[in-house]
Amino acid sequence: MEEAQGMFEPIPSVVPAVKDNAVTHEKVELGKMLFFEPRLSSSHLISCNTCHNLGMGGDDNLETSIGHGWAKGPRNAPTVLNAVFNIAQFWDGRAEDLKAQAKGPIQAGVEMNNKPHAVEVTLNSMPEYRERFARAFPGEDKPVTFDNLAKAIEAFEATLITPASRFDQYLEGNDPVLTAEEKEGLRLFMDKGCAGCHAGRNLGGEGYFPFGVMEKPGADILPPNDQGRFQVTQTADDSYVFRAGPLRNIALTAPYFHSGMVWELRQAVAVMGESQLGEKLSDKEIDLITTFLHTLTGEQPRVEYPILPVSTPETPLPQEMVAQ
Amino acid sequence: MEEAQGMFEPIPSVVPAVKDNAVTHEKVELGKMLFFEPRLSSSHLISCNTCHNLGMGGDDNLETSIGHGWAKGPRNAPTVLNAVFNIAQFWDGRAEDLKAQAKGPIQAGVEMNNKPHAVEVTLNSMPEYRERFARAFPGEDKPVTFDNLAKAIEAFEATLITPASRFDQYLEGNDPVLTAEEKEGLRLFMDKGCAGCHAGRNLGGEGYFPFGVMEKPGADILPPNDQGRFQVTQTADDSYVFRAGPLRNIALTAPYFHSGMVWELRQAVAVMGESQLGEKLSDKEIDLITTFLHTLTGEQPRVEYPILPVSTPETPLPQEMVAQ
Repeated sequence: MEEAQGMFEPIPSVVPAVKDNAVTHEKVELGKMLFFEPRLSSSHLISCNTCHNLGMGGDDNLETSIGHGWAKGPRNAPTVLNAVFNIAQFWDGRAEDLKAQAKGPIQAGVEMNNKPHAVEVTLNSMPEYRERFARAFPGEDKPVTFDNLAKAIEAFEATLITPASRFDQYLEGNDPVLTAEEKEGLRLFMDKGCAGCHAGRNLGGEGYFPFGVMEKPGADILPPNDQGRFQVTQTADDSYVFRAGPLRNIALTAPYFHSGMVWELRQAVAVMGESQLGEKLSDKEIDLITTFLHTLTGEQPRVEYPILPVSTPETPLPQEMVAQ
Repeated sequence: MEEAQGMFEPIPSVVPAVKDNAVTHEKVELGKMLFFEPRLSSSHLISCNTCHNLGMGGDDNLETSIGHGWAKGPRNAPTVLNAVFNIAQFWDGRAEDLKAQAKGPIQAGVEMNNKPHAVEVTLNSMPEYRERFARAFPGEDKPVTFDNLAKAIEAFEATLITPASRFDQYLEGNDPVLTAEEKEGLRLFMDKGCAGCHAGRNLGGEGYFPFGVMEKPGADILPPNDQGRFQVTQTADDSYVFRAGPLRNIALTAPYFHSGMVWELRQAVAVMGESQLGEKLSDKEIDLITTFLHTLTGEQPRVEYPILPVSTPETPLPQEMVAQ
């Protein structure tokens, strides 16, 4: 337990502070509405929650997401749960924080396919949004901006944390809460080297590592056309480098890896053993580690489904049939 | 007020009984999960709530819905709110009740594109669903069936009623709750003949009428390839006959008509005047009737977003990229 307490940190039961963005009640409530707001997409059909479904572990449980025009996105949607604790956002860390992240999918042609200005016009067309932005960003002349939208969504997402998993209770000193097998799995997780990349509060999400440190997995799991962080830094060292996946609630967020090509957690553990540790784990070891990973499922956030403001004659019409 | 009380009925504040389907707590909770369950669709992306968004007046605010493969459906999605009070479901009344209705979109190729057996396999693959069906349908040998799914969804939908609109308060005897203008609008609504089709509890949804009693609207609003109830009954009299749209929460559910081609409520009132009453209403009359229609917005249902069971290795994988 002491060793684990040195490597990992529990999820807090209170909402964490966010850099440069005070998490106020007004922002959280507005952010929740925006998170469920399909009119942020040009089709008026796709909301953040479409791919980061709060009822399904904060992602869509698809290989890669389906977006505007039924386009298939390039990478598996990461969970929004506990994302506030990651060092940076996206598989390649290209967004420094959740407010930067929130702006991405809204503009991506294969996701929500919209433009910042169009989003601002849409939000400005509804008096309730104008009032809520004014209350959430008091003292600002023009509070309804794409930047403030991102801040409000970030504030809401900061509340999407999942405390009180059995692993957290263990870290907090409750020894019998884990079974002997789960503790054996934890011991293997630390001793075999998994925790080398998957440590800290989110057991991952804190650093960048090549996928295939010891042995590159097959092209099905690591498609050659996606070089990961290389596309962000243009540095050869970052070829096929990805942010280590955070493992909180990992039992809820299949399929796995940036390619979303592995559906079973056991298989993902086996792949990691070979590609990252250069070791073919035994079935027994894989079982134990997988059993441990199931203790990382925390209390899922309970939110009331928001009632959204009604469109007005000034609200731009949906562009639903215009594919990218 | 007395005349109105004779023509209309308030939305009750308690959940109504449903024929052949006792509305139990267990069924409602299960039905809520199923209503938000994207794995009822073959893509695992589309849920009932996608097109019947509880945050947006119980529909999608699109001309016609977008479904599997980004297909555009044939008719505007009717609201699920207060649908339990309609005489039958769909624009052409082809489903006798909500449990019959619920089975339609799940199987429609342009909506959720799934098959009853596949849905049953999916639900049976998750222990929590097996337990919840057993509790909701006690004493049944095999409770996880497509029929029971429809009953659970119907039970949940029976809770989606919107009481306490200002018009309801008026019907219950509170005279000053409506302004003078709104009362004038109500007077016109009754005297001009609107209430001939739009009466009862839902101000519509109780009978079938030709669209264009007096004068057929243009092909943009009444497309010639959709003959409405004729397609159900094959009776010449039913050509271009539709169920009169229920007007509860009508201010929240633009665009209007089965074609979804009219975005402004004022314009919809004007079209109805010409096509159904054979009268070109004055701007003033249109304004007054529209003002009255805004009093039909009731309290929107507040629901906690459900946490759905996690898929298992037995759960069929999403067929997300296979268009119809």
